[in-house]
Amino acid sequence: MKQSKMLIPTLREMPSDAQVISHALMLRAGYVRQISAGIYAYLPLANRVIEKLKAIMHEEFAKINAVEMLAPALLTADLWRESGRYETYGDDLYKLQNRDQSDFILGPTHEETLTTLIRDAVKSYKQLPLNLYQIQPKYRDEKRPRNGLLRTREFIMKDGYSFHADYAGLDVTYEDYRKAYEAIFRRAGLDFKGIIGDGGAMGGKDSQEFMAITPDRTDLGHWLVLDKSIASLEEIPEAVLADIRAELQSWLVAGEDTVVYSDKSGYAANLEMATSEYKPSTKVAVQEAVERVTTPDCKTIDEVAAFLQVPEEQTIKTLLFRADDELLAVLLVGNDQVNTVKLKNFLRADFLEPASEAEARELFGAGFGSLGPVGLPDSVKLVADRRVEALTNAVAGANTDGYHLTGVNPERDFTADYADIREVREGEVSPDGQGILKFARGIEIGHIFKLGTRYSESMGATVLDENGRAVPIVMGSYGIGVSRILSAVIEQHARLFVSKTPKGDYRYSWGINFPKELAPYDIHLITVNVKDEQASALTAKIERDLQEQGYQVLTDDRNERVGSKFSDSDLIGLPIRVTVGKKAAEGIVEVKIKATGDTIEVNAENLSETLGILTDRNAD
Amino acid sequence: MKQSKMLIPTLREMPSDAQVISHALMLRAGYVRQISAGIYAYLPLANRVIEKLKAIMHEEFAKINAVEMLAPALLTADLWRESGRYETYGDDLYKLQNRDQSDFILGPTHEETLTTLIRDAVKSYKQLPLNLYQIQPKYRDEKRPRNGLLRTREFIMKDGYSFHADYAGLDVTYEDYRKAYEAIFRRAGLDFKGIIGDGGAMGGKDSQEFMAITPDRTDLGHWLVLDKSIASLEEIPEAVLADIRAELQSWLVAGEDTVVYSDKSGYAANLEMATSEYKPSTKVAVQEAVERVTTPDCKTIDEVAAFLQVPEEQTIKTLLFRADDELLAVLLVGNDQVNTVKLKNFLRADFLEPASEAEARELFGAGFGSLGPVGLPDSVKLVADRRVEALTNAVAGANTDGYHLTGVNPERDFTADYADIREVREGEVSPDGQGILKFARGIEIGHIFKLGTRYSESMGATVLDENGRAVPIVMGSYGIGVSRILSAVIEQHARLFVSKTPKGDYRYSWGINFPKELAPYDIHLITVNVKDEQASALTAKIERDLQEQGYQVLTDDRNERVGSKFSDSDLIGLPIRVTVGKKAAEGIVEVKIKATGDTIEVNAENLSETLGILTDRNAD
Repeated sequence: MKQSKMLIPTLREMPSDAQVISHALMLRAGYVRQISAGIYAYLPLANRVIEKLKAIMHEEFAKINAVEMLAPALLTADLWRESGRYETYGDDLYKLQNRDQSDFILGPTHEETLTTLIRDAVKSYKQLPLNLYQIQPKYRDEKRPRNGLLRTREFIMKDGYSFHADYAGLDVTYEDYRKAYEAIFRRAGLDFKGIIGDGGAMGGKDSQEFMAITPDRTDLGHWLVLDKSIASLEEIPEAVLADIRAELQSWLVAGEDTVVYSDKSGYAANLEMATSEYKPSTKVAVQEAVERVTTPDCKTIDEVAAFLQVPEEQTIKTLLFRADDELLAVLLVGNDQVNTVKLKNFLRADFLEPASEAEARELFGAGFGSLGPVGLPDSVKLVADRRVEALTNAVAGANTDGYHLTGVNPERDFTADYADIREVREGEVSPDGQGILKFARGIEIGHIFKLGTRYSESMGATVLDENGRAVPIVMGSYGIGVSRILSAVIEQHARLFVSKTPKGDYRYSWGINFPKELAPYDIHLITVNVKDEQASALTAKIERDLQEQGYQVLTDDRNERVGSKFSDSDLIGLPIRVTVGKKAAEGIVEVKIKATGDTIEVNAENLSETLGILTDRNAD
Repeated sequence: MKQSKMLIPTLREMPSDAQVISHALMLRAGYVRQISAGIYAYLPLANRVIEKLKAIMHEEFAKINAVEMLAPALLTADLWRESGRYETYGDDLYKLQNRDQSDFILGPTHEETLTTLIRDAVKSYKQLPLNLYQIQPKYRDEKRPRNGLLRTREFIMKDGYSFHADYAGLDVTYEDYRKAYEAIFRRAGLDFKGIIGDGGAMGGKDSQEFMAITPDRTDLGHWLVLDKSIASLEEIPEAVLADIRAELQSWLVAGEDTVVYSDKSGYAANLEMATSEYKPSTKVAVQEAVERVTTPDCKTIDEVAAFLQVPEEQTIKTLLFRADDELLAVLLVGNDQVNTVKLKNFLRADFLEPASEAEARELFGAGFGSLGPVGLPDSVKLVADRRVEALTNAVAGANTDGYHLTGVNPERDFTADYADIREVREGEVSPDGQGILKFARGIEIGHIFKLGTRYSESMGATVLDENGRAVPIVMGSYGIGVSRILSAVIEQHARLFVSKTPKGDYRYSWGINFPKELAPYDIHLITVNVKDEQASALTAKIERDLQEQGYQVLTDDRNERVGSKFSDSDLIGLPIRVTVGKKAAEGIVEVKIKATGDTIEVNAENLSETLGILTDRNAD
């Protein structure tokens, strides 16, 4: 393809309104343009990346007998009234009316649509399982769309739905999808983790999230690609490195989720669901009597612990929540943080929020700094993290401002329901006992759910089982954020290209180093001077030959300065650049490998063989 | 692909609410399902047809340097306010608000979106031409959605836009598109005509429509596919043929346009734009004096002509219209019908409607039956069809109820603007003098427009020309109704399959005979009895072999009666059916060619060779 025919509006400068590097580079390299807040046009380069990702998905889904179809995006509200979601989905749902004043929505997801199709088409368990998917724009009226394609109002999703006569069938397909997702993300060149997710949002049971990991800002080896003019990182002066480090730190770390993973085992979970090893202490200590002590001006756990000269792990923190209109005291050890997702799941609550200090004062007779579990009325439900149960002679608030109790012992002095409701911390032991927990930021790129009968029951989708009884269809749902992956890939494959001028000055500039399977083209073929007839003829021959060999070639045929051609090429980020320059007359071209910065001069006659080796395919 | 894994909900009976055969068959053969009025889900078979059509388009558009991209469907109203269309587009435009109460629309077309992208990205004529297209759902809130995918509220369009520094550039790309469209429709197996269209709707200049021709209901040779049990059409008893003819006539003729074409030359036009040969009479006659005659109870042209004993071509019909708030008398010869599109274009009017009889009476002093052009006040503008000008001694209304004038002569007795404003009639001579005009019903499947500067001027999209002057970008737009083509193909490839029972009774049933390039699969492979192990093993081997040879195979692995398998197969309509039946043990299978009804028995060893010949490809 001739670059002059493509719409690739590269920008000279980094766009000032982008906070994450993928957003900035997608705009600067001419992949996308925003049409309105959170709504983007995918320009030709982005469209090619998406088409390549779609092709990978089609291949992998064919292997698990998933069949593609296409539902409408404009959905009658009646469908969503049947499932109850028209009322409960919230402000993110785009609602509109047609000319007859009938209510419609723009589909954010398609459980209802698929359930109604299957309800009408399938009568017997013999017709199951069925496994359908589609790739299409979805709509969510985000309050604060941001960070390029990471959080948008119109986005491209792959959504799949499976239908089963029983849970055993669902388990098989769920496992098929898990493997297919891993294959897809691996082929897409993503560094990702499949983690334990919170299925609550979709009303389901088991679920697994797939997270693209945002690279560590301090890992220079990851970020820098050194030009051949620079021998090694060590050569670069510390002042330049400091600038580079500052440049890296100036970009927001993308990803709204914290991924918790073991540095040794395969354990990985969303922070919302993560847990760590828990071994209750077996140490036996004599239970002291409860004693009321003064703790003037001690508002925080640390202040109380310091004042009373006990370790913070010896204190109990008491919080007050409102869960589905019931007030609830929550106990944690010392500085542990409550994990509201775990707490909500434990309580099976739809709604949870912190109570106000006024409510605390009314109920406990004290402010936030002095709350405690001892001597509360029976009407107050107590939920404690399981680590609280193992404490002996702990410190807790006395429910009087300025006072705490020492010698507090669970069970003797208060009763509570115990559960794992704390947030894990980096450095704790993995719950499988293997390795230490690490934290990373992640971008959710996929999510698989065991929905069960949430939709088939509310919408009356049943089949006759082997005994002729009507049973609700068991469902799974499986999503991939297609457009979001474009952001995730660029987030992971953005690089700072460092070079040295002949004068010895160091320069660095941002660009993309696209993974092979998703790169919009395989090769960027550049003629330095399109008016040089020999070079142009050689370029045309190389283009033809490479295309015949099945390479996708982007040929920069523009009458532009070579500097701006190279800088566009660095931004666009194809894996290999072939430059036809001054040595064209001798039949010599330059091959540059994007990922390493290495360049070699090759006789055009041998180009195909060289590229065959570089791109891991057999040369002809 | 195993049929048991596909969602193909065939129906036993024709759906009673479908009026056109394509709608009925798409539902019955399990290609689509309606989710709400005019909004459809494309089930797996339909999705495959659409994907094949997309692949053909991608290939043909690559040849003309058209580049694919993808714009959003949810568009800010601001864009459409810039072009002025937010206010003028009418009730078909879906309007909605987001959570911030900003106005949005669902895009029915994307001139504004592309114009804004190009306006921002392109500064110089050197960056042009650019030629971009996309394939995506479009939205139009049709008052009366109907006939399956022929008129829907959400539909899939291919829309392309080209951008040029001058009209000469546009002409080249317009011609490229014309050829690409012809190639696409030919490859899709469509019987179509490229016709002169009315570009008015898009505010442009030249335009060409592409019409899929609805087959003639009386052409039994087209509609019937005879089973091998029937030697020829002649054999079928007249009573059966009468039933068949009645069945064919019972379906509405699809297509909302009338295509006018010459039976000899390439002339073809929409009825709205069609013209016929016009040779003004050169006969000289003596002009008689105007005479007022009584014409009691003569309301129609035919009644007046009969009463006065003149041919109807000797009379002038006078109609009254309101055009952009101006009253207008329109004159036609005898029974000619006014063509309001031609009239509107001639007047350059935005708005045209017939005036009321009350208005006629106020202005002319008479009712509709007695209007005439003689003696009208100067304030009434007269527009006459050019054929009126050639009349001598004509009859016209006297502007008094019950009276007409004879001896009326244009120019002497009234003055008018003359233009071609009549509807042509079947049987007239083609305007190029070659052949006779025929009428057919057509389904609009494509439309190409020379937009000119309609959008670039209103939205301020300019480039600097060679002299450094800002000039508006010249645009073209090019649409294909992708989902509508699915209907058009089935409309043209629906067949009545006729067979004879062993008892000698004739049976006929509807099915599809999909053209090769769009068929969802190449081959329907059917095991008569899935419990017959030999047959199942042979089926599995054939499936594997054919897939290795690149055929797309749909294997009916369902445990169903063979009759229902065959009847589903007839409905689904793949070009070739391979049946593994009782002779599986001898290695013999049956091959049926859908288009002809021919069946042959083939040794499975030779199947690949046979299919290679039948499908026009080299066997391995």
